[in-house]
Parts: sequence; structure tokens; C-alpha cells
Amino acid sequence: MPEAAETPVTMDKIVSLCRRRGFVFPSSEIYGGLGSTYDYGHYGVLTKANIRSLWLRSMVQERDDIVALDSAVILNPRVWEASGHVSGFSDPLVDCRTCKLRFRADKLEDASCGRKPSRHPGETPDCDLTEPRQFNLMFKTQVGAMEDASSVAYLRPETAQGIFVNFKNVLQLARRKPPFGIAQVGKSFRNEITPGNFLFRMREFEQMEMEFFVPPDQAERWYRYWIEERLNWYLDLGLRESNLRVREHTPEERSHYSSGTSDIEYRYPIGWQELEGVANRGDFDLTQHTLHSGTKLEYVGPDGERYTPHVIEPAVSIDRILLAFLCDGYDEEVVGERERTVLRLHPKIAPVKAAVLPLIPRNEEMASRARNLFEELRRHHVVEHDDSGQIGRRYRRQDEIGTPWAFTIDEQTLEDDTVTVRDRDTLAQERLPISGVRAWLDEALERPWRSPKAG
Amino acid sequence: MPEAAETPVTMDKIVSLCRRRGFVFPSSEIYGGLGSTYDYGHYGVLTKANIRSLWLRSMVQERDDIVALDSAVILNPRVWEASGHVSGFSDPLVDCRTCKLRFRADKLEDASCGRKPSRHPGETPDCDLTEPRQFNLMFKTQVGAMEDASSVAYLRPETAQGIFVNFKNVLQLARRKPPFGIAQVGKSFRNEITPGNFLFRMREFEQMEMEFFVPPDQAERWYRYWIEERLNWYLDLGLRESNLRVREHTPEERSHYSSGTSDIEYRYPIGWQELEGVANRGDFDLTQHTLHSGTKLEYVGPDGERYTPHVIEPAVSIDRILLAFLCDGYDEEVVGERERTVLRLHPKIAPVKAAVLPLIPRNEEMASRARNLFEELRRHHVVEHDDSGQIGRRYRRQDEIGTPWAFTIDEQTLEDDTVTVRDRDTLAQERLPISGVRAWLDEALERPWRSPKAG
Repeated sequence: MPEAAETPVTMDKIVSLCRRRGFVFPSSEIYGGLGSTYDYGHYGVLTKANIRSLWLRSMVQERDDIVALDSAVILNPRVWEASGHVSGFSDPLVDCRTCKLRFRADKLEDASCGRKPSRHPGETPDCDLTEPRQFNLMFKTQVGAMEDASSVAYLRPETAQGIFVNFKNVLQLARRKPPFGIAQVGKSFRNEITPGNFLFRMREFEQMEMEFFVPPDQAERWYRYWIEERLNWYLDLGLRESNLRVREHTPEERSHYSSGTSDIEYRYPIGWQELEGVANRGDFDLTQHTLHSGTKLEYVGPDGERYTPHVIEPAVSIDRILLAFLCDGYDEEVVGERERTVLRLHPKIAPVKAAVLPLIPRNEEMASRARNLFEELRRHHVVEHDDSGQIGRRYRRQDEIGTPWAFTIDEQTLEDDTVTVRDRDTLAQERLPISGVRAWLDEALERPWRSPKAG
Repeated sequence: MPEAAETPVTMDKIVSLCRRRGFVFPSSEIYGGLGSTYDYGHYGVLTKANIRSLWLRSMVQERDDIVALDSAVILNPRVWEASGHVSGFSDPLVDCRTCKLRFRADKLEDASCGRKPSRHPGETPDCDLTEPRQFNLMFKTQVGAMEDASSVAYLRPETAQGIFVNFKNVLQLARRKPPFGIAQVGKSFRNEITPGNFLFRMREFEQMEMEFFVPPDQAERWYRYWIEERLNWYLDLGLRESNLRVREHTPEERSHYSSGTSDIEYRYPIGWQELEGVANRGDFDLTQHTLHSGTKLEYVGPDGERYTPHVIEPAVSIDRILLAFLCDGYDEEVVGERERTVLRLHPKIAPVKAAVLPLIPRNEEMASRARNLFEELRRHHVVEHDDSGQIGRRYRRQDEIGTPWAFTIDEQTLEDDTVTVRDRDTLAQERLPISGVRAWLDEALERPWRSPKAG
């Protein structure tokens, strides 16, 4: 096993690998792009699908107390009045009367003046800034054929409100009582003034939020439970413990209605940043929607007991999880005289589970045995067949997309019906009967996996 | 096996079942809803996830020639200029000077005047209609902090254009050459003036589109191939042949650039309507984007051969597929002296694969055996455990959500370690060893399924 040297991972290296291997492309690239918007390529789609389905599996399939929901992106605009987003979901902006650009008043040090050469607006006498005013981060649009105030609607900036307004439906129809949760995966949109850092902060992103409704006196206990549960989810999927930490918000940082918020932070190349937030939202949301809608969102027990549940919310975006896995898995090492780049992803996260490679593709027997194995495996898993180029190049291509295993059909296969299986992390090779490959792969995918860089 | 009487399925019955069992809720209901917008509940989410994953499986996992993409909802607005959507994606509208409402000029017969009692505007002297003008169906918004023309952007009305603008990326990085395809699943948005018919026409819907790029002289062949392939996909998933047909558009109906378009139509309760469209789009899209972007979107072969591929596009929405399955599967029948409503869904489409039911839940031994079986099965499939109410009621609940099998733990289980398996369609019951249930279910899910109503 080669020594896993610790190489500093930079965002540039991640961006470059993503572009080179087709995980992520800058969006609308042929038209010069669109700031901080990205399109996911084949391997990005496959990896995101794994993250999504593992989250849903742990939240819904393997539990009794959480159901799924998929609410609309454009909700009745009164939802956002009740939630406080219309009045309060905003950043302070200043206009520069000289260069006519707008900047975030609380982030002037990050801004560049529109006059070349670029200067910090706060520092130059050229800049004549207005007083800050609040800029709402919700994308606005109009629904229907009329173009007046009555048709204004918003793209949701979070999926959570779609859950709160369906609380009563689920309570009645799913025959639930607190503690129970509602989980949702879907896109949210925020007109960020300063998006950036690749997938970390984008104007559209795919959220995975779960609102867990509990009796008020159990809120603190469930808040702690969900922090622990979510942290373990990342650890079980192989993120290194040394790159994860829980940071509890100070009372000043918290929303006024929250009695506790913790970030599960990941050590991205840009530093420790929020990966997932877990918040104790109290009864704020259900109370607000009760007030604004006139529909009582409360739990009434069979014995007449009656209360507004408190809400614990673990909320994350698939994009940030993907970025964390890419950063955690990225490795460069020297093997013999060669360098390789390898993505050490948990096999359940890896976009391709195995590659099937005929050693000498022009050998018809090898080609046909490889093809048959590939056809068998792909009925059960996402696998690749690659018969183009030197075997070493083919291995390195699979290493870069994080494929945990490669099955190679070689001369010996034609003699004894065995294949070589090569391990991405250790580079160990062993031989398996070709008839046993499928069962071997099924079982290998269920084994616990730990990063060789975990130390 | 009870006789499967043919009951007329109405949209009202489908809407009512969806509401009652938590497949679909009117969106933002506590705020009076939002026209033609729906939220999917637990079973809706699970069923849609099955449809999505079966489509991706058939398009990507089981083929060599199609890769996946997930492009942004808000693209650079020049994309929509090039595609023709800014100038041409519109309906003709008229204003009524009397009631101040707007109507589709080409659908006046469906419109209701705002003056009560409702009257058809075209028929009443009260209505004073303006000349028709074009109303663009794209939702408009603004990106960034400036609110002027330069910041205008659109929500995508289709996912296809995100594919075309990534053609070159995929060609280079996925090492593909025509014929090859790019598949995408994601939400699209259209500001329909007359949405309606439940899930059939909504303002936001989840598209599944695949653009298949071929050498020009193979276009006609691949067009026929994809019509056949997609039709068979529905038949394999158990939609009744008598409810499906292919209708080729007349030259007058087709887009000017299309040399062939066919609808796979389904016989919904509202009549034969487009389920999926398969279009031969020629080289229109790649040519337009080449002209507008200045980036040549063409294929150059190793021997210098050079052409703009033609595009075959099968395009459908998950929502319409779900509606078709619900309509096709909905059945009411009399069994003995009882009526039951049953959703006869293909097991791969059914949201829940099996129910585990202790016959007498207060019997501790039965309860614990049921719980153990449930825990084992849910590691592999979406299953339910139900221990509340009479066994007959529990069966009927599962029938209504389309669960193909129920495993019941009863007195005999405690004696001989067998359980009863009840078949949703035939109501046949047989006994299985409890230790073999998992393997039985795995295998049952792979069996072909045909609707007992297929005749």
C-alpha cells in the first residue's frame, strides 16, 4: 500500500478535476456563463443522486417517524409574508453614485469598484456610497396573465415553509403524532449578492431539509439527537473526523426565535464553513402560519391534550455535501515513478461502482468476456466498460472519478475463468472467479469504508 | 380471483384518492391555494422517485450511449434568445375592457367572464375584447442587485436547451461521438394562462428529456427507434395497450424546424392526450446556438469528417406519467359483499412494495415477529408496518396506495414459522417460510407484471 502523503487540497484543484472529468461545468459557458451558476455533468449527476438517495434512505425508508414531501417552488406569496421572508430576508446594500454598482454594506472589504483598476469602494475617494438599504434575496416573478401587484410571487428561498404549510395535511393523513418529521429534497433559489466559492454558495441549490415536530418539553433532547445523528451520517459515509466539527451559534448569531442552532462545519479549502445547520426553531413557524392563515396548526391528542409542536430542523444542500466529499476524497500521490490523482470516495457515494476492463481489447475473447461481465453487472449497479487506451491510463481515469474497484479480464481469465480486482485505495490486486464477481461487488458495497487518509 | 369489472375512471376519483391517501395536496392550501399548483405527499414522492429512477436506469445505466446532465434552471438569458423562446414562446391573449380579465384568444370557448354569472366572453355583448397580442409563457425574474434590463432572466420552460449548450462539453469530456444522447431530469416552469386538469398541465412540472445526437442520414431511423423504445417502456411497466397510442403530428401542427413529431398519447379521463412527445428536431438547435454563441457545435471525426448532428428528443414530465399510472391502475370492485378501491400499479412503480401486518397486534409474540420482519425488509425496500385497526381495514388501506403484497403474521406463524402473503390483484393468499420472505420479495419484484384489467 503506497503511503498516503497529505497534499493540501485547493479549491482550484477541485474545480479543475470537476471540469476535466465532467462532474461540474460552468453554466451557459458558450454564452460567457452566468455568475456562480453551474451545470452538473454525468458524474456530478450520479454522485448527487447517491447523496440524495442515501439521505432519503436514512430519513424516510429506515425510519418509522418521518414521511416525505415535495412541495412547489412557487407557493402562494402569503406563505412568505407569514414566514417573515418578505420583510426580513434581506442583505444591506449600498449604491455607489460614481460607478453605479451595488455592494453589500456588511461586506465592503470583498467588493471591487467598477472603475478600473479595481479598488475597494470603502477606501477610495472616488466612491460616493449611499446609505445602506435592505435588498430582499428572494427572486421575484409574476404568475398569470396580469402584470400587477396581485400577481407577484417568489421562488422559494428554502423548502422548509412548504413543509410547515402542509403540517396539518400530514398530521391527518399520515396518521402521525409528535414526535414525527417531514423530509423534503428540492431546489431553492436565493438572489445572493456575493455568491461564490464554486459549489459552496450558488444562486440555485438543492436543499435537503427535514422538519421534526416534537412536544415542547422534548425539544432540547431532540435538538441534541439530530446534531448527533447527522454528524454520524457524515462519519459513516467516510468524511474524516478531523475535517468535521460542531459549532454552536452564540445567542447573538441565532435567529430571534431559535433557542439553539448548531452548524456541522466542514474544513473546506476556504476554511471551516457550515456544511449543515441544525436548528431548534421552537414554535415560531407553526405559530406564524396559524396567525396568518387562520388555520390552527397544532396537535390535539385523543385525550384532548393540545399544543403547538416545536420544530427541530436539520438543513443542508446536496451541493455543499458533494463539495465536502470531493475535497475530503481528493488525493495526489506518487506510486512507484508515477503520480496519480485519486478521489477516495465512500463506495456508496462514488458515481461509478466498478469498471470492467479487457486488458487487450483487440483480443476478441477478452473483449467478449469483458462485455458479458459488464452487461451482467450493470443490471444491478452503475458500472463502466472501458476498452480504449493503455490499461494504466484507464486505471488512472477511474481513480480520478473515484471508482472503488476495477475488474480486469486478462490472459489468465481465458485459462481459469478468474479476473483481477484492483482496489482504488490500496492498489492491491487479487483474483476472483468471474462467476463470483457480482456477489463480491454486492458484498463489497456493504462493507464499512474508512479513508486511508484518516490516520 | 374476483372479476375485474371495468369502472369508468373520472378525474374526480383520482383527485379524491390522491388527497385522501396523501399522494397529492393542493399547494398552499391553508392560504387558499395557488391555481394549478400541487404539493406531492409521501406516496406521491415515493412513486415519482420510482418513475424517475426507472427512466434514468433505462436511459443511462443500462445503455452505453447516453450520459446524464443536470443544468441550471436560470441560464444566461441569451440561451432563450437563441432558442427562439424570447420571441416565439407565447400564446395570443385578449383583454376584456369590461371585466378587465385576460383570455387566450385561441381558447375563448374555455374562458369564463369575470362578471357573474359566468359567461363565455366571445358570446356575450358585455365583453369588449381587444385585439390579440402575444404573451410570453416564460416566467421572468431578475438576477443580481441591479433592477434593469441587463438583469432580466427567465426560469427555463424546458430542460432541453441546457443540454444543447453543453453539447460541446459532453462531446469532449465524455469521449462520445454520434449517435449519443444526453439525458436530464428537472423542473421546468411555464406561466400557462389556462393550466388545469390536475397534474396534467401545471405551471411547474418535472421534465425528463433526452436529446439524442445522430448523423443526419440516420435521423429518420433513430426517430422511429425512439418512438418504439419509449412506447415499450410504458408497456413493460404495465400501462394497458388499449390506453396507449402513437399519433403523428400533421405537417401543420409541427414546429417549422421539425421533420417529424409523434405523441405517445394516453387515454386520460379527459380523453386522448399527449403523454410523451418524440420529435425529430433536425439540426435547428445546434445551428441556432452556433449562430448566437459563436461556438461551433458540430462533430468533427478523426478523419476530418464534419457535420452538425441532428437531434431526436423524447420528452415527458414525471407528473403526466404519474397521472397516467394512477388512471390506469385505479379500480373499484366488489369482493364478496364488500367494495374495494385498488390501485393496480406495476410493483416497480408502487410507492410501497410490501406491508407487514401482525394479525393481532396486542399479541406480543406476533407483534415482535412482525417488527423483526419489517426491520429486515426495510433495509432493502420501501415497506410499511401497520398494526392499527382491523386486518380488513389495513388491507384496504394498502390496496388504495397500490401495495402489491402484504405479509401477515398470524397464529400459525408462531407454530410453524410461516407467514401469509396476500396478492393485491388476485387476493390469493399463500404461505411462505418467514425466513424466505426477503428472497421471495426480491424475486417477485423482478417478475413481469400485467394489469388484470388488460383483458
